[in-house]
Parts: sequence; C-alpha cells; structure tokens
Amino acid sequence: MKNADILIHGCTILPMNRKRSIENGALAVKDGRIAFVGKNASAGRIVAEAKIDAKGKVALPGLINCHTHVPMTVFRGIADDKPLNVWLDKTIWPLEARLKPEDVYNGALLGCLEMIEGGTTCFADMYFHEDEVAKAVEKSGLRGVLGEGVIEAGSSVQGEKMLARSVSFAERFRDYADGRVSAMLAPHAVYSCSPELLLKVGEEASRLGVGLHLHLGESETMLREFEKKNRLSEVEFLNKIGLLNERVLAAHCIDLSEKDMRTLSNRKVNAAYVPVANMKLGLSAAKVKDLTSLGVNVGLGTDGPASNNSLDLFETMKTGALLQKHEYLDPTVLPAYEVLKMATLNGARAVGLEKDVGSLEVGKKADIILVDLAKPHLTPLHDIYSTIVYSARAADVETVIVDGKILMQNQQARSLDEQAVMEKARKTAYDLLSR
Amino acid sequence: MKNADILIHGCTILPMNRKRSIENGALAVKDGRIAFVGKNASAGRIVAEAKIDAKGKVALPGLINCHTHVPMTVFRGIADDKPLNVWLDKTIWPLEARLKPEDVYNGALLGCLEMIEGGTTCFADMYFHEDEVAKAVEKSGLRGVLGEGVIEAGSSVQGEKMLARSVSFAERFRDYADGRVSAMLAPHAVYSCSPELLLKVGEEASRLGVGLHLHLGESETMLREFEKKNRLSEVEFLNKIGLLNERVLAAHCIDLSEKDMRTLSNRKVNAAYVPVANMKLGLSAAKVKDLTSLGVNVGLGTDGPASNNSLDLFETMKTGALLQKHEYLDPTVLPAYEVLKMATLNGARAVGLEKDVGSLEVGKKADIILVDLAKPHLTPLHDIYSTIVYSARAADVETVIVDGKILMQNQQARSLDEQAVMEKARKTAYDLLSR
Repeated sequence: MKNADILIHGCTILPMNRKRSIENGALAVKDGRIAFVGKNASAGRIVAEAKIDAKGKVALPGLINCHTHVPMTVFRGIADDKPLNVWLDKTIWPLEARLKPEDVYNGALLGCLEMIEGGTTCFADMYFHEDEVAKAVEKSGLRGVLGEGVIEAGSSVQGEKMLARSVSFAERFRDYADGRVSAMLAPHAVYSCSPELLLKVGEEASRLGVGLHLHLGESETMLREFEKKNRLSEVEFLNKIGLLNERVLAAHCIDLSEKDMRTLSNRKVNAAYVPVANMKLGLSAAKVKDLTSLGVNVGLGTDGPASNNSLDLFETMKTGALLQKHEYLDPTVLPAYEVLKMATLNGARAVGLEKDVGSLEVGKKADIILVDLAKPHLTPLHDIYSTIVYSARAADVETVIVDGKILMQNQQARSLDEQAVMEKARKTAYDLLSR
Repeated sequence: MKNADILIHGCTILPMNRKRSIENGALAVKDGRIAFVGKNASAGRIVAEAKIDAKGKVALPGLINCHTHVPMTVFRGIADDKPLNVWLDKTIWPLEARLKPEDVYNGALLGCLEMIEGGTTCFADMYFHEDEVAKAVEKSGLRGVLGEGVIEAGSSVQGEKMLARSVSFAERFRDYADGRVSAMLAPHAVYSCSPELLLKVGEEASRLGVGLHLHLGESETMLREFEKKNRLSEVEFLNKIGLLNERVLAAHCIDLSEKDMRTLSNRKVNAAYVPVANMKLGLSAAKVKDLTSLGVNVGLGTDGPASNNSLDLFETMKTGALLQKHEYLDPTVLPAYEVLKMATLNGARAVGLEKDVGSLEVGKKADIILVDLAKPHLTPLHDIYSTIVYSARAADVETVIVDGKILMQNQQARSLDEQAVMEKARKTAYDLLSR
C-alpha cells in the first residue's frame, strides 16, 4: 500500500491478537480500516493525508465497554453509599420515570464524550429511548452495540409493548451511522420478564439475527429468590427455554454455581465482568478465573455511571485485576495482558464485533487509541502491559480514532463541543430534579 | 487580616473539619499558614501578592499518604502478577541490594513529582538511605514524615547498626526543610526484628519523642506463622513489650482478630489502610468498618509504587471505599465523606501532624489542593463528596500548595523539572538492571 488517510508512526504498538509488541512501529489507516501495521522502517513509502508523530506513545485497540447504561450520566453521584433498594426506589426509578427523549440524548452525549476522552471506542448499552443513544453515538463518532430495554415488571401488556419497541429499534438501528451502530435485543433480566416474553424475545432475536444483552447473576439475594420461586437457577432457566447461545451478552455473572458456569461455557455465552459497580453496590465478585478456565469469553463493563460513577475502562481494568487477585487470594490471577485482552479483543467478541474491531490487524476497522507514556506516574517503563493496566489512567489517552476518524487529538475532543455537551447535561440533571 | 501572600477565590471549599462545604468561598495564605477561610464576599478587603481565580474548582486539604516506600518508583511494574515471595526473592531484594544513595534520591524525586501532580501533599515513608528521601522532600517542596527502616533479619549486629542509623536519621531530620520533614523510627515489622531490638527501638522513640512506623498484619499466612512461633499474635506481642501507643503508625492491619483490633483501639494506635497493594498481592481486606467502629484512627496509604503501581490517593480513596463495601457486602459502608476524611484529617492524625495539616482551618499550615470540576467525567455535580471520591482522578488536580508555596499551578509542576526528573529516574532504573 502506498496511499493512506492517516499514518501513525514512531510508537510502540500492542496489537492484542498476540502478546508481542511492536517497538518503533507504524500504523496506516485507509478508508476507515487498518491498512498497515508494522515497523516504522517498513512504512517509509506510505504517503498519508495526515501524519501523527507518536514517539513516546503506545498505540492499542480502542477499549470496549461491554455493559453500560450510558444516559445515566445525568444521575452520577446522586445517591451513593445507599442500599440498592433505597437507591432504586427512592431516587433512580422516580427520576427515570421523568426522563424525556432529549434528556436521554443529552446524558448519552455526555457519556460518549467521557468515553472518547478515556479511550473507549465501543460500548454495549441497554436503556430506554435507545434511539436517542444511537443518535448520540452517530454524532460523537463512537461505535455502539445498542439495545432498547425490555422489562415486564408484572404487566404482560407492558412487556409486549416494550418488546415491540426493542424489535423496532433493532430493525431501524442494526446498521446505523455507517455501520458504527449495531443492535441487540435487551431483555432486562430473567426475573423481570416472564418465560413467555423471553421466548418471544428469543424468537425475534433469531428472526433478526441479532444478539441478546441481559443482566444475569446480579446478586446472591436475587439469585436465591429466583431459585426458590422457580426451582431452577437463572442460568438453568434460560438454558431450559433455549435462550443461551454465542450471541448472548450476560452482564455481571456473580454468585453463579460451577454448574451454571459450565452451562454458560457449553452454550458459548459471553460474560461482562463489572467489578467497580459490583463492589460499589456491596456485592460479590464474579469468579472470572473459573469462568475463563471453563472457556467462557469475558469482557469488561463499567455499568451505568450512576453506579460506578464513571465510564473509565482503565479504572475497570485495574480494579478488575485487583478484585480477582483478592477474590482468589492469589496475585497471579488475571495478569495485566489478560485483562487488557478482556478490554479489547475479548470485548469485541462479547459484543459480536470480533471480525471488525478489538485488535490492530490489517483489514480491521481503525479503532485506535494512543496513550502518552511521558508522565511521571508511567515512569520508568519496565513492562508495557503493567504500565497500561496498573499505572495508566483515562487521562493519559491522547488520541482516539474510530472508524478511521480522529475523535480526539492531543486531548482535544473533535467530534463534540466539550463545553456545550457538559452544559446541556448539567441543565438536564438539574431540570430533572425540579420537574 | 488585610494582607496575604495568596488569595484563592470563587471556589467550593471542603474544610474537612466538618461536613458542610463553603460555596463561593475564599482562602487566604500568609507566611505559610491559612489566614482566612470563608465566603468570597467576606474576603473582599484582602490584598494578596498572588490571586488565584478558582471558579469551577474545589479546594480541599492536600491528601496524606500514610504508608509508602517512595524510592521504589524505579521498580514500578518490574515483576507484577507474581507470588509475593517470588516478587521479593527474585526481583525486589536483589535489586534493592544494588541501590546506591543517588538511586534512592532519583526514585524519591520521581515519586514526589507524581504525588504533587496527584494532589498528595504529605506522605509517611519508610526505606533505606532515607536521608536521600528527605533531600527529595526538601527539593520538591512536599511534606514528609520519614523513617529509616530497621530490619534485623536474624543478625543482631545488623539490627543494632540499622537502629543506630534510624536514630541518627531521626535526630538529623526530625525538623528539616523548614519543618516540612519530620521523623519517625521505622522498625520494619515484628517478625523481622527481635524483641530485644524492638524494646530498644521503643526506648529510643521515647527518648527522641518521635513515633514508630511499622508493618503490622501484612498477611494471614505471616500472622499465623508468627503466632505459631510466639504463641502470641503480632498485636499481643507488641502490646506485651509496651510498644503500642498513640504515636504508632501501623500499616496494613489485615486479618486481625477482634481482640487485636480492640487492643489497637485501647492503645490509640493509628492504622494505615492500604487497599490497592493488598489486593494486588492477593491479600485480604483490612476490616476498616470494625476498626473505626472500635475507635481506631485510620488513614490511607498506597504502599510502595512497586506493589500498587502508583502513588495515587484518588484511586486509593475509591478502591478503598469499594473494597470495604464488597468486604461487608454493604454499600453503606465507608461513604465518600468518610474516606475523604481518612485521606485528609485522619491521615494527618495518623502521621502525628493533626495540629498543622489535614483540614482547611485558620492557623493550620497551607497545604491546599484545587481540583478542576469542569470535566465530562465530573459532570453533573450532584454531591461534591461523591464526585471527589468516586469520579475524580489524580489528573483532575490543577493546583497544589504546600506550606504556602505553590508547587503546581494549571497542572504545571513548579518546584521540579518534570522532564529532568523522569529522565534521571529512567536512567537509574535501567542502570540498576545492568549493574
């Protein structure tokens, strides 16, 4: 190849489809895809529209957030340190009932901006008015795997209505924004949807050829309650009704039995590990070592910013690794390279996009981030994976490229007006409280 | 007061000696101390040499790191995800044996720079060649409570030699760098020093009127081993030989029995909670809720950057709160205000400086940080404590003042040359590996 749109040169490259890094490397982007990955010396003949001198920086695949509810930025920090039911009953649900489509858009746009600035290039989302999230993704330039939530809550009429909306969303947005938006159906959870509704969700997903994004194993209490009522575990129940397959993205997966984890593995279900929100809500740790040993593909998620309170995958990588070491009382569990792979290639697989993103390979879409290593807290550099996972922070991300478009350069967001996005989200948040 | 050296105006102030914040507040600094804290409107007549417009920012006491080994920045990320004994035996100890005084200085200076940039204004340190750390503190402008480590490791001759060094250090540096450096004696741990040596350490500490900084309850395995050998727990042992008092700073305090925690409370011992390093090494969580319920004063520590891998107290606040909620399976444990208090006022008490620092009060030394709130990930602002603890990061610190001197403004370090400090530390690290 000779002509490129963007040439990034002089950096360390972590391709993430293998452990070996490329020192003094170069990356070329053409028509939204990666056209060259290799040594700088071999990129000498490439002529590019835009050149990025990335000396002292490391290039890695954009990070993938496998579970969030991104419009909830507007509720960030509104009721922390409270029991889960109080947080939901007294604050979140009453406020969500007041949400208008434009509120969801403003919240989602703020979340997209935060993700861009923190090196996240793709996220799996589940919420209401999800078409507003799709529009925020379109505007921001990010990549999103989006699902309109389906929750029955005892009313089959509501359940049917929400399923229809979720299906309609998937039909309209399954290939939106130049393919940057794809869709899933998003049944909230096995305890909040009836078996009949879940069966219909499964049928519609098959018909549309889309995946399912749902909550599974959210807390021990809820699992025990479900099991007592249904004489089957959540996983057994979903398996029995035939809903588990390789296109299912199951968020949380905490407090599962070994049998349940085996079933997830047999059915090739993808798990989203959500350490920060699980800890913040006083919950257990997903047994990620067991899940991965059994062969389950695990990606990373932040959960909604109201229960985290950030969309920061650098933080999630570090906290996620720490929590596993603590859970198994073993410092060798979930080493740095493995957790970075969860945040990239495994995440891509979890959201059904492993053919297009998750690693820096020729032919894949150009979702690339550059991290600036010339910082005191990243010095000295003994091991690049340790540095990225245990020392780097979202604020060290300098450049973000999605689909071959530069969304942030030198820490300046390009696709969104930072001040305007923040101001609109502030107004939305305060307005919601006074409605 | 009419004339000040620095006037900070227009910010939200978190004084941390009480929960109520001051909106649209002002802070005046005169001769290194806080001369005014209050509403902007009441500060109108103050004439200052330097004015800092802090609109949209929050002022809080500089954070206090109660346990670290700051020269270990040079080993950052060198051998992660390994069992503790392998990490120590194969990497850290052999490298430490090669450390020269100037290496310790270069590593400490890098750590000081990292701490300044992350809003830490005071730290309690224990290492070898600690006079080099004192010089780095002097140069950087930070505040340090420093102790030369004493470790016997089976040789009473070595023990006596190290005690003599530790005493000599304390004598020379107990009031160094305009009082910014104070000293403690630093017996490494109860299992690495003989009872005879510890008794002498206690006598010398009393004679000098300085505190003790030591490791206590580092891991369950080590605690059980000690107990088996000595038929007393570490805490019982220290209590028996009369070493526990209100000037003792005990790092870690994990896996302690309720009886041990009661003893720490009765003896008014201060604990440093070190969540990140404990998790990273695959260890248990200190029972901070139990400790504080029993009345033990708890501060926060990062531990050395080789086992963390950062000196970031924002991260430690969040991870520390998360770990307690997870440990007790209760989201109400260790709320945001309480963990920020640990990082400030309780930390000041733990290192024996509560009369001078830890809160923003007239008469206290001017150790102040400003955090910039105008960031997407800090928007919207519903609860200032939630925002600081659960959403803010070290990189959001904009200005750092210690002893009335501005060490960083607009994220530009002033007391240290960032590039030069990083370059020296890099050279030291690489040189160490090739010696």
